[in-house]
Amino acid sequence: MKLKRSSRLVDMTHYLLQHPHKLVSLSFFSERYASAKSSISEDLVIIKESFETQGIGKLTTVPGASGGVRFLPLVKKEAAEQFLHTLSATLTDTERLLPGGYLYMTDILGDPLTINEIGRLIASAFVTKQVDVIMTMETKGIPLAYATASQLNVPVVIVRRSSRVTEGSTVSINYISGSSKRIQSMVLPRRGLAPGSHVLVIDDFMKAGGTMKGMTNLIKEFDAELAGCAVLVETKEVSPKLVDGYLSLLKLGEMDQESDISVEIGNYFDYFQEDDLQ
Amino acid sequence: MKLKRSSRLVDMTHYLLQHPHKLVSLSFFSERYASAKSSISEDLVIIKESFETQGIGKLTTVPGASGGVRFLPLVKKEAAEQFLHTLSATLTDTERLLPGGYLYMTDILGDPLTINEIGRLIASAFVTKQVDVIMTMETKGIPLAYATASQLNVPVVIVRRSSRVTEGSTVSINYISGSSKRIQSMVLPRRGLAPGSHVLVIDDFMKAGGTMKGMTNLIKEFDAELAGCAVLVETKEVSPKLVDGYLSLLKLGEMDQESDISVEIGNYFDYFQEDDLQ
Repeated sequence: MKLKRSSRLVDMTHYLLQHPHKLVSLSFFSERYASAKSSISEDLVIIKESFETQGIGKLTTVPGASGGVRFLPLVKKEAAEQFLHTLSATLTDTERLLPGGYLYMTDILGDPLTINEIGRLIASAFVTKQVDVIMTMETKGIPLAYATASQLNVPVVIVRRSSRVTEGSTVSINYISGSSKRIQSMVLPRRGLAPGSHVLVIDDFMKAGGTMKGMTNLIKEFDAELAGCAVLVETKEVSPKLVDGYLSLLKLGEMDQESDISVEIGNYFDYFQEDDLQ
Repeated sequence: MKLKRSSRLVDMTHYLLQHPHKLVSLSFFSERYASAKSSISEDLVIIKESFETQGIGKLTTVPGASGGVRFLPLVKKEAAEQFLHTLSATLTDTERLLPGGYLYMTDILGDPLTINEIGRLIASAFVTKQVDVIMTMETKGIPLAYATASQLNVPVVIVRRSSRVTEGSTVSINYISGSSKRIQSMVLPRRGLAPGSHVLVIDDFMKAGGTMKGMTNLIKEFDAELAGCAVLVETKEVSPKLVDGYLSLLKLGEMDQESDISVEIGNYFDYFQEDDLQ
């Protein structure tokens, strides 16, 4: 159906936001709106400018017959800093202290807008990396994994603590929890991960990094490749970690039951990618 | 900063899509773009028309000083039918058959675009209902719960099989799994659910409905209200279910190891809300 520019802009914005990292040909939009490719090109210039000015992301153009346009969600540094400062302030509440040096984050992990923004931050850091699939361990990392996967447009595989009848045949490995030193299992459906795929591992919380380390071993078991690791909160307390080269959004200071909670920004900005694309 | 109409349309579309069900005042947009309210009103007419034509959702206007505009994500019936037909065709693959009458759906549940669309369908069915929070049981229902919650702009609480140190104090109940008849526990953090809140329960798969029934009991335990139940797939096999008044997107026919899988559309369209808003 033929649409006016204003309506095209609204629909194209929606379409691009729903299909991040997907190469969309000019012909696709041209047919969708019964409009000339030259008009579509002009629309895309407007959208590109708005996305960049408002910190939504980049539109990159791939020239040639098989080319098109690709939307890459990307936060601005200033917006990321502001978001992480607000989040760390929310976490700095002594009522969140739990026995064992844990922090109550269930409410934060339950808020979709916050989770989606965290996903956008993680996806921004990996925007130029090859990521084919995102892996997480049940349960709390799952929303973060999906939020990131939505922005990178890749599937999610969930590692479980025990095998389930609903997953068919599985591969299981044992690992040692870094902080409790207990032997535990992790299980992934045999059909879950293709050999050679590049896996980004995501979790909500890392103390010693035992779970993360276990997942990197599981990736080897499937002859897949590690693309990176990202956590929402790491603790200062246990150092060095069992994995290195991970990204952390926030870092939790050492706590005793009496003292205040200190939460600072993690190593996120070392991984921040915005400049690479400018 | 002052923006032209075309740039405003792109940014307003993005903003509204990110903040569904939120009442946004005209002043907010007017200040954001340093533009007159009359221009913003005209922008909103264009966006409203595009959203409706393209099946993105509705923009409803609340008049008066404390009024504004609210974006309600809403699928079109035809698009919902097409999506559910495609999904049921994908599920009708004998390689998905697992022992015990289960179906391998892990790959489908791992795809964020599919999950987000399922969330949009469920959210559409509850668009006129009061929903304050979404509840699901770990693990597979979690992505569906978040996808729906993102569209309804409400938080998610995750019921777990056993209590975790990271959740603080918890409330636990026992329930009987409807199909296996085993006694199991479900646990929710004490801070997880406010009394009186309206809870929409979401799960991926329902046989007898024991898990779903357990969750409705847990809701009573917190003096909260049941707003509704929704599942991606219910089975024909076990009938009647332990809960009634639930919404199902798909219905799995009786299976034996030899026969084909039959998947049909569930009772979704009985709950479909589009007409209520027209």
